[in-house]
Amino acid sequence: MLAETLAAIRPADPRALAEARAHQDRLTKPRGSLGVLEEVAIRLAGAAGASPPPMPEPAALAIFAADHGVHARGVSPWPQEVTVQMVANFLAGGAVANAFAAQAGVTVTVVDVGVAADLPEAPGLVIRKIAHGTDDLSQGPAMTVDQAVRALEAGIVVARGLIAEGARCLITGDMGIANTTASAALISVFTGKDPADVTGRGTGIDDAMYHGKVDIVRESLRVNGLVGFIDSGSPPSEALRALAAVGGFEHAALAGFILGGAAARVPVILDGVIAGAAALVAAALDPAVTDHCVAGHRSAEPGHAAALTHLGLRPLVDLELRLGEGTGGLLAHPMVCAAVRVMHDVATFDSAGVTEKPV
Amino acid sequence: MLAETLAAIRPADPRALAEARAHQDRLTKPRGSLGVLEEVAIRLAGAAGASPPPMPEPAALAIFAADHGVHARGVSPWPQEVTVQMVANFLAGGAVANAFAAQAGVTVTVVDVGVAADLPEAPGLVIRKIAHGTDDLSQGPAMTVDQAVRALEAGIVVARGLIAEGARCLITGDMGIANTTASAALISVFTGKDPADVTGRGTGIDDAMYHGKVDIVRESLRVNGLVGFIDSGSPPSEALRALAAVGGFEHAALAGFILGGAAARVPVILDGVIAGAAALVAAALDPAVTDHCVAGHRSAEPGHAAALTHLGLRPLVDLELRLGEGTGGLLAHPMVCAAVRVMHDVATFDSAGVTEKPV
Repeated sequence: MLAETLAAIRPADPRALAEARAHQDRLTKPRGSLGVLEEVAIRLAGAAGASPPPMPEPAALAIFAADHGVHARGVSPWPQEVTVQMVANFLAGGAVANAFAAQAGVTVTVVDVGVAADLPEAPGLVIRKIAHGTDDLSQGPAMTVDQAVRALEAGIVVARGLIAEGARCLITGDMGIANTTASAALISVFTGKDPADVTGRGTGIDDAMYHGKVDIVRESLRVNGLVGFIDSGSPPSEALRALAAVGGFEHAALAGFILGGAAARVPVILDGVIAGAAALVAAALDPAVTDHCVAGHRSAEPGHAAALTHLGLRPLVDLELRLGEGTGGLLAHPMVCAAVRVMHDVATFDSAGVTEKPV
Repeated sequence: MLAETLAAIRPADPRALAEARAHQDRLTKPRGSLGVLEEVAIRLAGAAGASPPPMPEPAALAIFAADHGVHARGVSPWPQEVTVQMVANFLAGGAVANAFAAQAGVTVTVVDVGVAADLPEAPGLVIRKIAHGTDDLSQGPAMTVDQAVRALEAGIVVARGLIAEGARCLITGDMGIANTTASAALISVFTGKDPADVTGRGTGIDDAMYHGKVDIVRESLRVNGLVGFIDSGSPPSEALRALAAVGGFEHAALAGFILGGAAARVPVILDGVIAGAAALVAAALDPAVTDHCVAGHRSAEPGHAAALTHLGLRPLVDLELRLGEGTGGLLAHPMVCAAVRVMHDVATFDSAGVTEKPV
């Protein structure tokens, strides 16, 4: 399923890009006056292979939840059971992601790809558990390559399912205590940046815990033979090995979710640092996937900015959020819709009888 | 009406601010993890005098349109008739503001406070014309103080009317070829910054036109005796004189619109540089008005950043927009709603049974 998905991904269509760019310049507004949003609309036209691109709604948020063996090393002040407690909170509609999704008219699906506890079946919960949490990435591979592929495919299946139900935009979400540690390791591996430059304080840790976290990220790269790993030009098998070594099940599933959206030409709005790390994995498997991604926001985690720079994506929201769950992606969704709607609704200088600025 | 409106404006309520802050910390998210949006929700609680504050919807956009005598000096490459053409475009639903408003579920009202041409009556158009455009601000006062007060009161009337119809959030919009010149003059007057530091290229002008525009802004301050004007501590009559000297009818009306929202404790989302200039006028009349304002975005105009800094407001959207019409305010509205919705919908650690991070 992974190979078939990768084979279906196309880069941006140059003709649709050119048409969209020309169309933007005919609309009743000064050229370029919508700034970054013009680029978003043009990129989505390229991704869809059509100008104007289809409206990116309805949208669906999938929150991939999993636990992390590295939690035992003391990288987070939160107890591991908060992952399962927050899954229950999502299912009860009580989390920030639910409030933002309700505001934006976005559906929420929670996917257990590796929570440590067994979860009871519930409406809105998809159980695709690969294992009860990963192994400790600082001691050896967090998961096997086979597990990584199965988690990727779980993400592809979720993307396909949501698109089959009518979603025309996917939004990435995540939940997993300690998952900023695995994210920092993945970002260091795929961008070549030093662990100290891409490791952050997650949901709030003190100096001692922070320095320990950087050391653990560094150790994970050494133990797993990933120091000096370079993604560009490496075969996909190497990217999968790196993902398995230091990733989380939610990172693998999110990478699959992104690939699944791209393969169906449905745009994917990336949330924060966890999604950024997953997108690096997806882009290492097929660089064309980034043409289908929109960076929803830039989180306060330093690794996120590094990931976005490496991906060549500019974030839409930059308000010091550091929550995850898909919250940054959800805030961006109305702006992405607004950007595309301009291409559908706005009059041209000719049609509206507005005098164009002399060139 | 102006005096009565000013008398009704209250600063933020300290008790509601404290309650909102404490409530944020009980919600199932790491403390502070919603960054700037937590501050927005807390500020709106202070403005409303209630925690949680009421949801800021439905929202209403008012686009105040007017022409400017200074256009004759060649400060814009666009012909003056584009103001009236764009009013027709707004009324036909063909402008970017219409597309953004439709996306956000916001109503659009266009107010003629000083368009040079006579406009036919039309649904969605409110005619409160003070004059057929201002006089040239570089030759003397752009309007009389009496005209400035009447334009302010027109804005108050529009705010009251929209609130009476059910609006629980106001969004500022503007249309007026050459209105960035008057904005730069107002911002220079009220912030004390040099005209060269607050004058921008508006919707796109070349170097020669830009330098001429800076000279004209400087001339307008000299001719009108406003060099060295300082707002803080000046009586309102001085602020009105400065507004009349170098403002536009839409600036005056927008200042009234902002005061009208604040007096009714209905939050006002400010759009770009025109609204920023108008908010400086409103704040000079009553500093408490800023407690009721949210900076929707930061435009590419340099004067806008100066105005926001002076007002102590942090913009939500920062995507290099330079269109006006209310487009930046419209993009911010869903985020403001999301921020407030968190206070209404999100579970507390206690109610959701989520373990709190050990302090």
